[in-house]
Amino acid sequence: MKKKVSNAVVRRLPRYYGQLNALYQVGVARISSSSLGKVMNLTASQIRQDLSCFGEFGQQGYGYNVESLRNEIAEILGMNLGHTAIVLGAGNLGRALIQNFQFAQHGFELIAAFDTDRTLVGTSIAGVPVYNIDKLTQYLESQHVDVGVLTVPQSAAVPTAQRLIDGGVKGLWNFTNVELGIRNEGVVVENVHFADSLLALSFLISNPDKDSSR
Amino acid sequence: MKKKVSNAVVRRLPRYYGQLNALYQVGVARISSSSLGKVMNLTASQIRQDLSCFGEFGQQGYGYNVESLRNEIAEILGMNLGHTAIVLGAGNLGRALIQNFQFAQHGFELIAAFDTDRTLVGTSIAGVPVYNIDKLTQYLESQHVDVGVLTVPQSAAVPTAQRLIDGGVKGLWNFTNVELGIRNEGVVVENVHFADSLLALSFLISNPDKDSSR
Repeated sequence: MKKKVSNAVVRRLPRYYGQLNALYQVGVARISSSSLGKVMNLTASQIRQDLSCFGEFGQQGYGYNVESLRNEIAEILGMNLGHTAIVLGAGNLGRALIQNFQFAQHGFELIAAFDTDRTLVGTSIAGVPVYNIDKLTQYLESQHVDVGVLTVPQSAAVPTAQRLIDGGVKGLWNFTNVELGIRNEGVVVENVHFADSLLALSFLISNPDKDSSR
Repeated sequence: MKKKVSNAVVRRLPRYYGQLNALYQVGVARISSSSLGKVMNLTASQIRQDLSCFGEFGQQGYGYNVESLRNEIAEILGMNLGHTAIVLGAGNLGRALIQNFQFAQHGFELIAAFDTDRTLVGTSIAGVPVYNIDKLTQYLESQHVDVGVLTVPQSAAVPTAQRLIDGGVKGLWNFTNVELGIRNEGVVVENVHFADSLLALSFLISNPDKDSSR
Protein backbone atom coordinates (compact mmCIF):
# COMPACT_ATOMS: atom_id res chain seq x y z
CA MET A 1 0.00 0.00 0.00
CA LYS A 2 2.54 2.57 -1.20
CA LYS A 3 -0.12 4.74 -2.76
CA LYS A 4 0.26 8.47 -2.27
CA VAL A 5 -2.43 10.11 -0.19
CA SER A 6 -3.61 13.57 -1.23
CA ASN A 7 -3.09 16.47 1.11
CA ALA A 8 -6.89 16.87 1.35
CA VAL A 9 -7.22 13.32 2.70
CA VAL A 10 -4.33 13.89 5.12
CA ARG A 11 -6.28 16.93 6.42
CA ARG A 12 -9.54 14.98 6.74
CA LEU A 13 -8.12 11.94 8.56
CA PRO A 14 -7.71 13.79 11.90
CA ARG A 15 -11.29 15.05 11.57
CA TYR A 16 -12.53 11.49 11.08
CA TYR A 17 -10.63 10.47 14.16
CA GLY A 18 -12.03 13.37 16.20
CA GLN A 19 -15.63 12.74 15.13
CA LEU A 20 -15.47 9.00 15.65
CA ASN A 21 -13.87 9.47 19.04
CA ALA A 22 -16.59 11.95 20.03
CA LEU A 23 -19.29 9.52 18.85
CA TYR A 24 -17.63 6.69 20.77
CA GLN A 25 -17.46 8.82 23.93
CA VAL A 26 -21.20 9.42 23.83
CA GLY A 27 -21.91 5.74 23.32
CA VAL A 28 -22.64 5.47 19.58
CA ALA A 29 -21.74 1.94 18.47
CA ARG A 30 -22.22 2.18 14.72
CA ILE A 31 -22.84 4.78 12.06
CA SER A 32 -23.64 4.83 8.36
CA SER A 33 -21.39 6.70 5.96
CA SER A 34 -24.27 9.08 5.20
CA SER A 35 -24.79 9.93 8.90
CA LEU A 36 -21.05 10.37 9.39
CA GLY A 37 -21.09 12.56 6.30
CA LYS A 38 -23.81 14.72 7.79
CA VAL A 39 -21.89 15.48 10.98
CA MET A 40 -18.72 16.16 9.00
CA ASN A 41 -20.29 18.09 6.14
CA LEU A 42 -19.04 15.55 3.57
CA THR A 43 -20.86 13.25 1.18
CA ALA A 44 -21.13 9.55 1.95
CA SER A 45 -19.27 8.72 -1.24
CA GLN A 46 -16.41 11.05 -0.32
CA ILE A 47 -16.05 9.26 3.00
CA ARG A 48 -16.05 5.84 1.35
CA GLN A 49 -13.49 7.07 -1.18
CA ASP A 50 -11.24 8.60 1.50
CA LEU A 51 -11.23 5.44 3.59
CA SER A 52 -10.62 3.23 0.55
CA CYS A 53 -7.08 4.66 0.42
CA PHE A 54 -6.34 2.61 3.51
CA GLY A 55 -8.26 -0.63 3.14
CA GLU A 56 -11.73 -2.05 3.54
CA PHE A 57 -13.91 -0.58 6.24
CA GLY A 58 -17.58 -0.92 7.06
CA GLN A 59 -20.17 -3.32 5.76
CA GLN A 60 -22.94 -2.79 3.26
CA GLY A 61 -26.19 -2.20 5.15
CA TYR A 62 -24.51 -2.08 8.55
CA GLY A 63 -22.23 0.93 8.32
CA TYR A 64 -19.13 1.39 10.38
CA ASN A 65 -18.38 0.07 13.82
CA VAL A 66 -17.47 3.35 15.53
CA GLU A 67 -14.92 2.00 17.97
CA SER A 68 -13.07 -0.20 15.52
CA LEU A 69 -12.99 2.45 12.78
CA ARG A 70 -11.72 4.99 15.31
CA ASN A 71 -9.00 2.55 16.35
CA GLU A 72 -8.01 1.79 12.77
CA ILE A 73 -7.76 5.49 11.94
CA ALA A 74 -5.70 6.04 15.10
CA GLU A 75 -3.33 3.38 13.81
CA ILE A 76 -3.18 4.93 10.33
CA LEU A 77 -2.39 8.27 11.98
CA GLY A 78 0.51 6.69 13.87
CA MET A 79 -1.06 7.40 17.25
CA ASN A 80 0.14 4.07 18.67
CA LEU A 81 3.80 4.48 17.73
CA GLY A 82 4.88 6.15 20.97
CA HIS A 83 6.03 9.40 19.36
CA THR A 84 7.96 11.79 21.55
CA ALA A 85 7.91 15.59 21.41
CA ILE A 86 9.77 18.51 22.95
CA VAL A 87 8.69 22.15 23.14
CA LEU A 88 11.17 24.83 22.10
CA GLY A 89 10.31 28.12 23.78
CA ALA A 90 8.31 28.16 27.02
CA GLY A 91 6.73 31.61 26.63
CA ASN A 92 2.96 32.11 26.76
CA LEU A 93 2.26 29.98 23.72
CA GLY A 94 4.68 27.22 24.70
CA ARG A 95 3.15 27.16 28.18
CA ALA A 96 -0.37 27.13 26.78
CA LEU A 97 0.49 24.02 24.78
CA ILE A 98 2.33 22.31 27.64
CA GLN A 99 -0.43 22.98 30.16
CA ASN A 100 -3.55 22.68 28.03
CA PHE A 101 -2.88 20.60 24.94
CA GLN A 102 -3.46 16.90 25.46
CA PHE A 103 -0.34 15.50 23.79
CA ALA A 104 -0.90 12.04 25.29
CA GLN A 105 -4.44 11.82 23.88
CA HIS A 106 -2.92 12.34 20.45
CA GLY A 107 -0.27 9.68 20.79
CA PHE A 108 2.62 11.91 21.82
CA GLU A 109 4.70 11.88 24.96
CA LEU A 110 5.87 15.41 25.76
CA ILE A 111 9.23 14.79 27.37
CA ALA A 112 10.90 18.20 27.77
CA ALA A 113 10.79 21.92 27.13
CA PHE A 114 13.68 24.25 26.35
CA ASP A 115 14.06 27.97 26.91
CA THR A 116 16.73 30.65 27.31
CA ASP A 117 15.08 32.23 30.37
CA ARG A 118 17.21 31.42 33.42
CA THR A 119 14.24 31.81 35.74
CA LEU A 120 12.48 28.96 33.89
CA VAL A 121 15.43 26.63 33.33
CA GLY A 122 15.49 23.94 36.01
CA THR A 123 11.78 24.28 36.78
CA SER A 124 9.01 22.13 35.40
CA ILE A 125 5.70 23.10 33.81
CA ALA A 126 2.83 20.67 34.31
CA GLY A 127 5.41 18.00 35.06
CA VAL A 128 7.52 18.73 31.98
CA PRO A 129 11.13 19.68 32.79
CA VAL A 130 12.49 22.93 31.29
CA TYR A 131 16.12 22.79 30.15
CA ASN A 132 18.51 25.43 28.88
CA ILE A 133 18.27 25.62 25.12
CA ASP A 134 22.08 25.52 24.99
CA LYS A 135 21.74 21.86 25.96
CA LEU A 136 19.47 21.00 23.02
CA THR A 137 22.06 19.38 20.76
CA GLN A 138 23.39 17.31 23.63
CA TYR A 139 19.85 16.29 24.63
CA LEU A 140 19.03 15.15 21.10
CA GLU A 141 22.09 12.90 21.11
CA SER A 142 20.89 11.03 24.17
CA GLN A 143 17.09 11.02 23.69
CA HIS A 144 14.88 9.89 20.84
CA VAL A 145 12.78 12.88 19.82
CA ASP A 146 10.28 12.60 16.95
CA VAL A 147 8.83 16.11 16.88
CA GLY A 148 10.04 19.55 17.89
CA VAL A 149 7.29 22.04 18.74
CA LEU A 150 8.62 25.44 17.66
CA THR A 151 7.28 28.24 19.85
CA VAL A 152 10.47 30.32 19.89
CA PRO A 153 10.58 33.99 18.83
CA GLN A 154 10.77 34.53 15.07
CA SER A 155 14.47 35.42 15.11
CA ALA A 156 15.29 32.02 16.62
CA ALA A 157 13.01 29.98 14.35
CA VAL A 158 15.42 28.96 11.58
CA PRO A 159 18.51 28.27 13.73
CA THR A 160 16.45 26.26 16.23
CA ALA A 161 14.81 24.31 13.41
CA GLN A 162 18.24 23.55 11.96
CA ARG A 163 19.51 22.22 15.27
CA LEU A 164 16.46 19.99 15.58
CA ILE A 165 16.97 18.64 12.05
CA ASP A 166 20.67 18.07 12.65
CA GLY A 167 19.67 16.26 15.83
CA GLY A 168 17.48 13.85 13.86
CA VAL A 169 13.88 14.85 14.53
CA LYS A 170 11.32 13.66 11.97
CA GLY A 171 8.90 16.55 12.18
CA LEU A 172 8.58 20.17 13.19
CA TRP A 173 5.32 21.59 14.50
CA ASN A 174 5.95 25.21 13.62
CA PHE A 175 4.06 27.99 15.43
CA THR A 176 6.56 30.77 14.67
CA ASN A 177 4.80 32.11 11.56
CA VAL A 178 8.19 31.92 9.83
CA GLU A 179 8.37 29.94 6.57
CA LEU A 180 11.27 27.68 7.47
CA GLY A 181 12.14 26.90 3.85
CA ILE A 182 13.11 23.34 4.65
CA ARG A 183 12.78 20.87 1.81
CA ASN A 184 14.09 17.49 0.84
CA GLU A 185 15.66 16.77 4.15
CA GLY A 186 13.17 14.06 5.02
CA VAL A 187 11.78 16.28 7.75
CA VAL A 188 8.08 17.14 7.74
CA VAL A 189 7.14 20.71 8.66
CA GLU A 190 3.57 21.25 9.83
CA ASN A 191 2.86 24.96 10.08
CA VAL A 192 0.30 26.53 12.35
CA HIS A 193 0.41 29.97 10.80
CA PHE A 194 -1.83 32.19 12.91
CA ALA A 195 -1.30 35.14 10.57
CA ASP A 196 -2.34 33.21 7.46
CA SER A 197 -5.38 31.89 9.28
CA LEU A 198 -6.50 35.34 10.45
CA LEU A 199 -5.92 36.83 6.99
CA ALA A 200 -8.00 34.07 5.39
CA LEU A 201 -10.76 34.90 7.89
CA SER A 202 -10.32 38.58 7.06
CA PHE A 203 -10.77 37.79 3.36
CA LEU A 204 -13.87 35.70 3.96
CA ILE A 205 -15.66 38.30 6.12
CA SER A 206 -14.64 41.07 3.69
CA ASN A 207 -15.79 39.24 0.55
CA PRO A 208 -18.82 37.21 1.60
CA ASP A 209 -19.88 36.84 -2.05
CA LYS A 210 -16.62 35.02 -2.91
CA ASP A 211 -16.79 32.31 -0.31
CA SER A 212 -16.88 28.94 -2.02
CA SER A 213 -15.43 27.08 0.93
CA ARG A 214 -18.55 26.42 2.94
CA MET B 1 -16.25 40.42 -10.00
CA LYS B 2 -18.64 38.10 -8.17
CA LYS B 3 -16.64 35.04 -9.11
CA LYS B 4 -16.22 32.42 -6.41
CA VAL B 5 -12.69 31.93 -5.17
CA SER B 6 -11.58 28.39 -4.36
CA ASN B 7 -10.58 27.53 -0.83
CA ALA B 8 -7.05 26.77 -2.08
CA VAL B 9 -6.71 30.33 -3.39
CA VAL B 10 -8.11 31.74 -0.15
CA ARG B 11 -5.37 29.79 1.67
CA ARG B 12 -2.63 31.02 -0.67
CA LEU B 13 -3.54 34.73 -0.59
CA PRO B 14 -2.18 35.27 2.94
CA ARG B 15 1.05 33.52 1.91
CA TYR B 16 1.40 35.88 -1.07
CA TYR B 17 0.90 38.79 1.25
CA GLY B 18 3.47 37.48 3.73
CA GLN B 19 6.11 36.78 1.08
CA LEU B 20 5.62 40.08 -0.71
CA ASN B 21 5.75 41.95 2.58
CA ALA B 22 8.97 40.16 3.53
CA LEU B 23 10.49 40.97 0.12
CA TYR B 24 9.42 44.60 0.48
CA GLN B 25 10.97 44.81 3.96
CA VAL B 26 14.35 43.70 2.63
CA GLY B 27 14.20 46.22 -0.22
CA VAL B 28 13.16 44.11 -3.21
CA ALA B 29 11.34 46.38 -5.67
CA ARG B 30 10.18 43.93 -8.30
CA ILE B 31 9.96 40.18 -8.83
CA SER B 32 9.08 37.85 -11.70
CA SER B 33 6.32 35.30 -11.26
CA SER B 34 8.91 32.52 -11.63
CA SER B 35 11.09 33.94 -8.82
CA LEU B 36 8.06 34.45 -6.60
CA GLY B 37 7.08 30.89 -7.45
CA LYS B 38 10.47 29.61 -6.33
CA VAL B 39 10.26 31.20 -2.88
CA MET B 40 6.69 29.98 -2.46
CA ASN B 41 7.11 26.52 -3.94
CA LEU B 42 4.50 27.22 -6.64
CA THR B 43 4.72 27.37 -10.42
CA ALA B 44 4.76 30.74 -12.20
CA SER B 45 1.58 29.80 -14.04
CA GLN B 46 -0.19 28.92 -10.80
CA ILE B 47 0.67 32.35 -9.43
CA ARG B 48 -0.58 34.10 -12.56
CA GLN B 49 -3.77 32.05 -12.45
CA ASP B 50 -4.36 32.75 -8.74
CA LEU B 51 -3.93 36.48 -9.18
CA SER B 52 -6.12 36.55 -12.29
CA CYS B 53 -9.10 35.88 -10.00
CA PHE B 54 -8.74 39.45 -8.77
CA GLY B 55 -7.66 41.51 -11.77
CA GLU B 56 -4.61 42.34 -13.85
CA PHE B 57 -1.29 42.39 -12.08
CA GLY B 58 2.28 42.57 -13.33
CA GLN B 59 3.62 43.33 -16.76
CA GLN B 60 5.07 41.01 -19.38
CA GLY B 61 8.88 41.14 -19.13
CA TYR B 62 8.87 43.30 -16.02
CA GLY B 63 7.23 41.12 -13.42
CA TYR B 64 5.43 42.45 -10.37
CA ASN B 65 6.07 45.66 -8.49
CA VAL B 66 6.47 44.19 -5.00
CA GLU B 67 5.08 47.10 -3.01
CA SER B 68 2.04 47.68 -5.17
CA LEU B 69 1.17 43.98 -5.46
CA ARG B 70 1.54 43.64 -1.68
CA ASN B 71 -0.81 46.61 -1.22
CA GLU B 72 -3.36 45.26 -3.67
CA ILE B 73 -3.39 41.89 -1.95
CA ALA B 74 -3.75 43.62 1.43
CA GLU B 75 -6.81 45.32 0.01
CA ILE B 76 -8.23 42.07 -1.38
CA LEU B 77 -7.71 40.52 2.07
CA GLY B 78 -9.69 43.34 3.67
CA MET B 79 -6.71 44.52 5.71
CA ASN B 80 -7.67 48.18 5.25
CA LEU B 81 -11.25 47.85 6.45
CA GLY B 82 -10.56 48.60 10.10
CA HIS B 83 -11.78 45.26 11.42
CA THR B 84 -12.16 44.94 15.17
CA ALA B 85 -11.61 41.84 17.29
CA ILE B 86 -12.13 40.72 20.87
CA VAL B 87 -10.53 37.76 22.67
CA LEU B 88 -12.78 35.41 24.63
CA GLY B 89 -10.78 33.65 27.33
CA ALA B 90 -7.58 35.23 28.68
CA GLY B 91 -5.82 32.03 29.74
CA ASN B 92 -2.34 31.12 28.48
CA LEU B 93 -3.38 30.91 24.86
CA GLY B 94 -5.51 34.05 24.96
CA ARG B 95 -2.65 35.92 26.62
CA ALA B 96 -0.14 34.57 24.11
CA LEU B 97 -2.26 36.00 21.30
CA ILE B 98 -2.90 39.32 23.06
CA GLN B 99 0.75 39.84 23.95
CA ASN B 100 2.53 38.35 20.95
CA PHE B 101 0.28 38.28 17.93
CA GLN B 102 0.46 41.45 15.84
CA PHE B 103 -3.25 42.04 15.25
CA ALA B 104 -2.63 45.58 13.98
CA GLN B 105 -0.15 44.39 11.35
CA HIS B 106 -2.91 42.19 9.99
CA GLY B 107 -5.52 44.90 9.82
CA PHE B 108 -7.30 44.18 13.09
CA GLU B 109 -7.78 46.38 16.11
CA LEU B 110 -7.92 44.24 19.25
CA ILE B 111 -10.28 46.19 21.45
CA ALA B 112 -11.07 43.98 24.46
CA ALA B 113 -10.68 40.63 26.17
CA PHE B 114 -13.23 38.75 28.27
CA ASP B 115 -12.75 36.20 31.01
CA THR B 116 -14.53 34.72 34.03
CA ASP B 117 -11.49 35.00 36.31
CA ARG B 118 -12.15 37.76 38.85
CA THR B 119 -8.44 38.37 39.35
CA LEU B 120 -8.15 39.27 35.65
CA VAL B 121 -11.37 41.25 35.18
CA GLY B 122 -10.65 44.96 35.45
CA THR B 123 -6.97 44.58 34.56
CA SER B 124 -5.46 45.04 31.13
CA ILE B 125 -3.06 42.83 29.17
CA ALA B 126 -0.67 44.61 26.83
CA GLY B 127 -3.04 47.57 26.90
CA VAL B 128 -6.15 45.50 26.16
CA PRO B 129 -8.84 45.78 28.85
CA VAL B 130 -10.22 42.54 30.34
CA TYR B 131 -13.94 42.53 31.07
CA ASN B 132 -16.22 40.06 32.80
CA ILE B 133 -17.62 37.64 30.23
CA ASP B 134 -21.07 38.24 31.77
CA LYS B 135 -20.90 41.67 30.11
CA LEU B 136 -20.31 40.26 26.62
CA THR B 137 -23.84 40.62 25.26
CA GLN B 138 -24.09 44.16 26.59
CA TYR B 139 -20.67 45.00 25.11
CA LEU B 140 -21.66 43.70 21.68
CA GLU B 141 -24.71 45.97 21.71
CA SER B 142 -22.59 49.07 22.15
CA GLN B 143 -19.43 48.22 20.17
CA HIS B 144 -18.90 47.11 16.59
CA VAL B 145 -17.03 43.80 16.72
CA ASP B 146 -16.11 41.95 13.53
CA VAL B 147 -14.32 38.91 14.91
CA GLY B 148 -14.42 36.94 18.15
CA VAL B 149 -11.23 35.06 19.00
CA LEU B 150 -12.37 31.93 20.84
CA THR B 151 -9.80 30.77 23.39
CA VAL B 152 -12.28 29.65 26.04
CA PRO B 153 -12.30 26.12 27.54
CA GLN B 154 -14.03 23.51 25.37
CA SER B 155 -17.15 23.39 27.54
CA ALA B 156 -17.72 27.11 26.92
CA ALA B 157 -17.01 27.05 23.18
CA VAL B 158 -20.50 26.59 21.75
CA PRO B 159 -22.42 28.88 24.16
CA THR B 160 -19.81 31.63 23.76
CA ALA B 161 -19.89 31.26 19.98
CA GLN B 162 -23.67 31.54 20.05
CA ARG B 163 -23.57 34.75 22.08
CA LEU B 164 -21.05 36.23 19.64
CA ILE B 165 -23.25 35.30 16.68
CA ASP B 166 -26.36 36.66 18.37
CA GLY B 167 -24.36 39.82 19.02
CA GLY B 168 -23.65 40.23 15.31
CA VAL B 169 -20.00 39.30 14.78
CA LYS B 170 -19.04 38.34 11.21
CA GLY B 171 -16.36 35.81 12.01
CA LEU B 172 -15.09 33.46 14.69
CA TRP B 173 -11.41 32.61 14.99
CA ASN B 174 -11.80 29.32 16.80
CA PHE B 175 -8.91 27.88 18.84
CA THR B 176 -11.03 25.61 21.04
CA ASN B 177 -10.63 22.45 18.96
CA VAL B 178 -14.41 22.11 19.14
CA GLU B 179 -16.29 21.78 15.84
CA LEU B 180 -18.83 24.54 16.39
CA GLY B 181 -21.29 23.15 13.85
CA ILE B 182 -22.38 26.61 12.72
CA ARG B 183 -23.67 26.82 9.19
CA ASN B 184 -25.73 29.13 7.06
CA GLU B 185 -25.83 31.91 9.58
CA GLY B 186 -23.64 34.20 7.51
CA VAL B 187 -20.89 33.85 10.09
CA VAL B 188 -17.48 32.59 8.98
CA VAL B 189 -15.71 30.14 11.29
CA GLU B 190 -11.95 29.85 10.86
CA ASN B 191 -10.65 26.95 12.90
CA VAL B 192 -7.15 26.65 14.26
CA HIS B 193 -7.39 23.02 15.28
CA PHE B 194 -4.15 22.16 17.03
CA ALA B 195 -5.18 18.52 17.41
CA ASP B 196 -5.91 18.06 13.70
CA SER B 197 -2.63 19.72 12.84
CA LEU B 198 -0.59 17.50 15.16
CA LEU B 199 -2.39 14.37 13.95
CA ALA B 200 -1.66 15.31 10.32
CA LEU B 201 2.00 15.69 11.30
CA SER B 202 1.81 12.35 13.10
CA PHE B 203 0.47 10.72 9.93
CA LEU B 204 3.16 12.27 7.75
CA ILE B 205 6.07 11.21 9.95
CA SER B 206 4.55 7.74 10.39
CA ASN B 207 3.92 7.17 6.67
CA PRO B 208 6.78 8.94 4.86
CA ASP B 209 6.08 6.96 1.68
CA LYS B 210 2.55 8.39 1.47
CA ASP B 211 3.40 12.05 1.59
CA SER B 212 2.21 13.72 -1.59
CA SER B 213 1.94 17.14 -0.03
CA ARG B 214 5.53 18.33 -0.30
